[in-house]
Amino acid sequence: MTPQGQPETVPDDGLTTRQRRDRPLLMVHTGDGKGKSTAAFGLALRAWSQGWPVGVFQFVKSAKWRIGEERALHVLADSGQGGPVTWHKMGAGWSWVRERVDPDGDPGAAAREGWAQITRDLTAQTYRLYVLDELTYPLRWGWLDVNEVVEVLRSRPGRQHVVVTGRRAPRELLDAADLVTEMTKVRHPMDTGQKGQRGIEW
Amino acid sequence: MTPQGQPETVPDDGLTTRQRRDRPLLMVHTGDGKGKSTAAFGLALRAWSQGWPVGVFQFVKSAKWRIGEERALHVLADSGQGGPVTWHKMGAGWSWVRERVDPDGDPGAAAREGWAQITRDLTAQTYRLYVLDELTYPLRWGWLDVNEVVEVLRSRPGRQHVVVTGRRAPRELLDAADLVTEMTKVRHPMDTGQKGQRGIEW
Repeated sequence: MTPQGQPETVPDDGLTTRQRRDRPLLMVHTGDGKGKSTAAFGLALRAWSQGWPVGVFQFVKSAKWRIGEERALHVLADSGQGGPVTWHKMGAGWSWVRERVDPDGDPGAAAREGWAQITRDLTAQTYRLYVLDELTYPLRWGWLDVNEVVEVLRSRPGRQHVVVTGRRAPRELLDAADLVTEMTKVRHPMDTGQKGQRGIEW
Repeated sequence: MTPQGQPETVPDDGLTTRQRRDRPLLMVHTGDGKGKSTAAFGLALRAWSQGWPVGVFQFVKSAKWRIGEERALHVLADSGQGGPVTWHKMGAGWSWVRERVDPDGDPGAAAREGWAQITRDLTAQTYRLYVLDELTYPLRWGWLDVNEVVEVLRSRPGRQHVVVTGRRAPRELLDAADLVTEMTKVRHPMDTGQKGQRGIEW
């Protein structure tokens, strides 16, 4: 309940409390439960409020599922308060790719294009918070090399925070993370035959 | 991954799929991990985007922890798009209570005032989504009667969605919920001596 509580242990790492506090975080939200992406977009609200540039990279095919969050973050970014927000969608073709996307094209190639851009942005320190939404799936499907992804994340410069969402996060990613939260489904309305509904699921 | 996937079972409850889909939900985010409240505020983004009136009731003493979310939802509410958002804070004295709040006063009385207002709002169908942030604590501390709270939630009219957050949700509340997600801490930077930091924890 207290985000400013005393830490449970004090490490012998030669860092001051302030250096340790400002350490950039790699966060992973995984598990079969709800709230993995929703909590990541909640983090984006905090980052926006701090005035941080936020980059969202959505590794899903459907653009429908996050329309509420995307619209909200666009309104926030346009408000003249807080930080800028840039939203990239793989499903609609990455915005920086000029050619018209072939809807039957290789999704692995699209995922790799997304990762290449993230690598460039991390090197350039374009954003202060990266929301890598559902990145675990292209990792699980072998479209992206998990060791390469982890190496890029580990060696990112500066004070860039990263949150990765999705089920079945690979072990290598979990090992590299500073903070891992597993969202566990205890009960879900789909279990009793209820379908997803507007305003709740998207 | 698919919010519109087929449900696992089809219940024999006499409802159409549409009636079942539009059923109002009582959601609980509990567990020791992060993301319980953050995911609830992410839900509020979706509700706002649908144009739904959203009521946030924050059952915590410190007003600091949600400043990012509160600011974002105020900007969204003032944008002229989406739905209205009303934010009530127990720690600062509930906004509908006129007298100056005694900071050393009875927090149980303040919690009961909050619950009484929620009861009135549910009866009047004031909001379409209620974020009852950290409501589990006044329940755990005996400031609110869990059976009374559950009865009010169960008997709420119309199509009002409710999300309750906080650790150690009482069994009676879990039993009444349509959707329960447990956020489990797998790894947290405070374990290695890192304190909470701006933009991440608040």
